[in-house]
Parts: sequence; structure tokens; C-alpha cells
Amino acid sequence: MSADRRFIAEAVRLGEAARGRSAPNPNVGCVIVSADGGVVGRGATAAGGRPHAEAAALEQAGRKATGATVYVTLEPCTHQSSRGPACTDLLLKAKPARVVVGMKDPDPRTSGKGIMRLRDAGIDVKVGVGRRAAEESLSGWLTRLKLGRPRITLKLALSIDGKIALPSGESKWITGEDARAHVHLERAHSDMILVGRGTYQADAPRLDVRLPGLEDWSPRRALLTHGEAVDGWEILQSPQDVYRLHDVNDLLVEGGSATATAFLAADLVDRILIYRAPIIVGEGKSSFGYVGLDAIADAHGLWAPSDGRRLGVDRLEVYERVR
Amino acid sequence: MSADRRFIAEAVRLGEAARGRSAPNPNVGCVIVSADGGVVGRGATAAGGRPHAEAAALEQAGRKATGATVYVTLEPCTHQSSRGPACTDLLLKAKPARVVVGMKDPDPRTSGKGIMRLRDAGIDVKVGVGRRAAEESLSGWLTRLKLGRPRITLKLALSIDGKIALPSGESKWITGEDARAHVHLERAHSDMILVGRGTYQADAPRLDVRLPGLEDWSPRRALLTHGEAVDGWEILQSPQDVYRLHDVNDLLVEGGSATATAFLAADLVDRILIYRAPIIVGEGKSSFGYVGLDAIADAHGLWAPSDGRRLGVDRLEVYERVR
Repeated sequence: MSADRRFIAEAVRLGEAARGRSAPNPNVGCVIVSADGGVVGRGATAAGGRPHAEAAALEQAGRKATGATVYVTLEPCTHQSSRGPACTDLLLKAKPARVVVGMKDPDPRTSGKGIMRLRDAGIDVKVGVGRRAAEESLSGWLTRLKLGRPRITLKLALSIDGKIALPSGESKWITGEDARAHVHLERAHSDMILVGRGTYQADAPRLDVRLPGLEDWSPRRALLTHGEAVDGWEILQSPQDVYRLHDVNDLLVEGGSATATAFLAADLVDRILIYRAPIIVGEGKSSFGYVGLDAIADAHGLWAPSDGRRLGVDRLEVYERVR
Repeated sequence: MSADRRFIAEAVRLGEAARGRSAPNPNVGCVIVSADGGVVGRGATAAGGRPHAEAAALEQAGRKATGATVYVTLEPCTHQSSRGPACTDLLLKAKPARVVVGMKDPDPRTSGKGIMRLRDAGIDVKVGVGRRAAEESLSGWLTRLKLGRPRITLKLALSIDGKIALPSGESKWITGEDARAHVHLERAHSDMILVGRGTYQADAPRLDVRLPGLEDWSPRRALLTHGEAVDGWEILQSPQDVYRLHDVNDLLVEGGSATATAFLAADLVDRILIYRAPIIVGEGKSSFGYVGLDAIADAHGLWAPSDGRRLGVDRLEVYERVR
């Protein structure tokens, strides 16, 4: 792997770490490497979106940024904001020799202009190194830009035969500890978590991040309900209300079945996480109700498996909506 | 890998190829290697159980067997049978220098006696090379010896959410061509295939092996029913009737839901093949009904994932009953 790819991959990892806390801004990652190959600055978009990743990394690098190479997952912003300086201005001031960019900013306020201004100042700018990984790391924010709503992930813990509970409702525990720890990590990387009233009533106290050191990363909580408000919870009356969530990049829908079904029926799911336990439940509660499917042929081609791995005794299956 | 392991692995592959046609005998594989390292004979148990693998391989090797090494997945039989000569006698006559055996025969009529007679004649006998693979290749026959019934495999084509059909019964097609071709291979390696009356009525003409060159491998067909006999089909009145199948090593249960549920409830499934399509069905027919489970905790520890792989757009999940 070339040095450029290696350092952009590190910037992607920094950006991924900020996923779930940077909204409404993108979760960018930045690495600054001096001429001798040493890393002199690292940064990721801070909680709430400011400072930006470049600002944080430049701050750490100080004068060592001059003549260095700046790796950043997204094109540096160039539009003025009351919330802080444009990163392009910070870079022009720091005078790196090179800037390597994962992807061009699709935001029309910057798109291409940041790159142009850097080049005009004599800085060597390379665009599109590790683009796919950069796009994947920014997928929540990109979905919001493209579709006007958060990237929506649906999470379920299922048996081999697709059941989420016994007929009694008993569902503790379908999956084991490793799978549950993974769910908590997914929560940490979501800006908001949403459940239906049934799940709220059964599990409300547990819907936070319980990973040592990451408790602060517990996302905002939302309830899908026609009923009255609940202290500390935001209300969505229907799945379509996701279009009003302008400050949520990544939304995690945790169920139960009625909520999951409503989101699937509205075609408002981008990613499904199945935590599959090696158990057979038989008679029990199904994952979903009627999602609008009337012929098997129509079910094909909508979902592509994108990841699969063992989590203790269970297995994680990830499916992405093909759009 | 040592030469011994390599050649026993080849014998295992030969034996695996005979799975589904050798009953009531074990599907043994045999390879004969001359002193210069060349293979001079290969054999697998023939359809119906005779000739045995050793007899076939010795026949091919002729005089070249003298001084050679014989690799065989199962200890050569030594008990007299009206159906043919004992393999130990054939080997004593052929005078190989060595015999490498995958596993000792658990059949008390031979167990250890074949090995002893060969050693008494001055032949160097090594036992247990590649034992696990040999046992796995003989698992149908071994299950019959141990439990008095065939090894029972349950096969299902499922959606992500564990549905086998729409509410209308429509199930064509949940899975794609690669998965269906794999099912046909599983049929070829089963002595008998069993379905319930519903599946029989919907799919009877299709329950054969439709792989070019393997049409002859179509297994015997059985129906789980209290109803009357059907020409060309054997009848099981209940899952317990598998204990009467003395000439079936590997039984493939292909459904539907009621039949699968009956076998699971009776704890008469050793292996589950899930052909999982990346589709969501939602409201539809579940894989199983009540299998006797009243608490989630009791579902754990019964099934271990033993294999998983992509088959075209689908995924095969294999689970083995932990006993």
C-alpha cells in the first residue's frame, strides 16, 4: 500500500471514530505527515461539529504543518461560517506542500472550490485517494445531503428461523454478550436511536451505551408514537418524520417488530444489522409484519450483503439497501 | 502435509463421492500408492455397498499392490459375508507393505480385528491418520451405528427474516440457481429424501437430482403422512419411523414447515442446511411451528455453526446438533 493510501486510511479511521457525534457536520478525519514521514498532527471533527478535523490536526502540528502533507477524508471547507474559520483558510495560512483528499465535498457551497483555492496557492492537491472508504466513513452525512434524511440502520437480534421472541414476548437473551457489546458500539456511532412504544416500555433504561469509557457517547433517544411526549425522548409520529431530523447523520432503529415494519414498508431503511443466534425458536414473534410484498420476485435485488462475521457464538449479517 | 495425510485426504474425497449410494454399507474410499509414489489404484464403495472400496482399488492395482501402501478411510472388514469376500483377506493376498487407516471400524464384528490380522501377517499398519475427516465422511453410516437411525439433515430455503413463503404459499423462488444446484448435490449424496404431503403435492415432480450426469443419483423418496401410500414413495407415519430405516445412512428432510417442525420437536435432526436469500418477506409462512421451546435459555447450546459460504447471491449456513 502506498504511503498516500496508508495515511488516508488512518484519516478514515479517525473519521469513523467520530461517527455519531459530529452532526450536523460530517465526521471527517485528518492526518498531517511531515517531509520525513512522521505524523505531526491528527484530528477528527469534534462533538457537535466544531472544530473541524483539519483545524484540530493543524493545531496539533503547529509550525510542523508547513511543508508537510495533509491527509483529509473530505475536501476542506471554504465557505464562511459564524461557527468557525473555513479550513481552506487555515490550510493556506499553514502552508503545507501537499493536500491529499479522500473525496470532493458534494456540498455546493464548497464543492471543488476548496481544492481550487489550495491549488491556486501553489499547493499540490491530490483528490480521490481511498475515495470508497472515505465515502463509506461519511455515509451518514452523505445520505442526509443526498436524500434529506439520516442514514437509517435497522438492528435486530434474531434466531436462525427469524424470530425475535417467544409468543410470550420473552426475548432475553436471543444473542450473547459479544453481539450485545457490538450493539452498544453501533449506538455510540449513531446520533440518535429510535424505538417503538413497546420496546420503550420494556427496555427504556437499557437504551444507552454501556461500554466502559463510552458512556458519554449515548445517542439522543427518539420514540415512534402517536402518544404523548416522554421526558428526555424526542417524538416521531411516523417514519416520514426522519425528513425533519436535520441534525442527525446516523439513526439507529432498534425495534420492535411494528417499528421495524413501519420503516421497511416506507422504504426508509438503508442498512440492516442482523445479530443471528444459532438457536431455533419455532413458534414465536416474527421479525416483521406486512412490508408491502405481494410477490417473491419483487423481494429480490433490494438488499446486498456487505459484511458478515462471528461475534462470539452469534453471527453479524449486514445488508445494505441497493439504490 | 505429509504424504500419508495427502493420500488419506484423497481417499476421504473418494468416500465422500460415494455418500448417498453405499447404504447399508459405509461409503469408504481407498487409494493405493506404489513404492515410487505413483497412485496405482483408487476405489470407493459401489452403489448398494458392494464391491467395497478396497476390493475396487485392489482390482485396479493388480500386481502393483504388492509392496505398495494402501490408504483406506475405514478399517478393512474382516467378517465373512455372503455378499463378497472380507477386505482383510483380499489385502493379505495382495501383500501390500503398509496399510494406513483413517479410523478403526466401530462395528464389533471387525473392530480392531482387521488391523490385528494385517499386523500378524507382517504388514505395517498405521491407524488414525486424518481421523476427523474420515469420521466426517462416514457420518451417515456412523450415526446409524451409534443411534440406530440415519443421519438426518434438514434443508430450508429462507429469507433474512426466516420466512419460507408468502401467506399465499408462494415460495418460488426464495433462493437463486446456485443454491438450488447445491440442494441437488445434497440430494445426490442422500440415500433418501423425505417431504410432507403438502410439499409432495406441490413439488413431487421436482424432487430428484437435476444435475447433468448425476440424474441416476436421485435418492429413494419418502412421504411423512398418515394417508395412503403413493406409488414410488415410501411412507413414514411419524419421525420415529426413521428407526426402521436400516438401509439409509443419510436422510434429507426437505419440508415443509409441519414436517420440519415434527422432526425438530422429536429432536431427530442432526444437521440443518439454511439457504439464506438476501430478501425480506415480512408477513408470510414461518419456518417452524412449536418445537417444544418454552424459554429462550433452553434454546442455547443445541446448535453449532459448522460451515458458511456464499452460493451466488445467497448464503449457505450449516448447523450441527451438539450431542
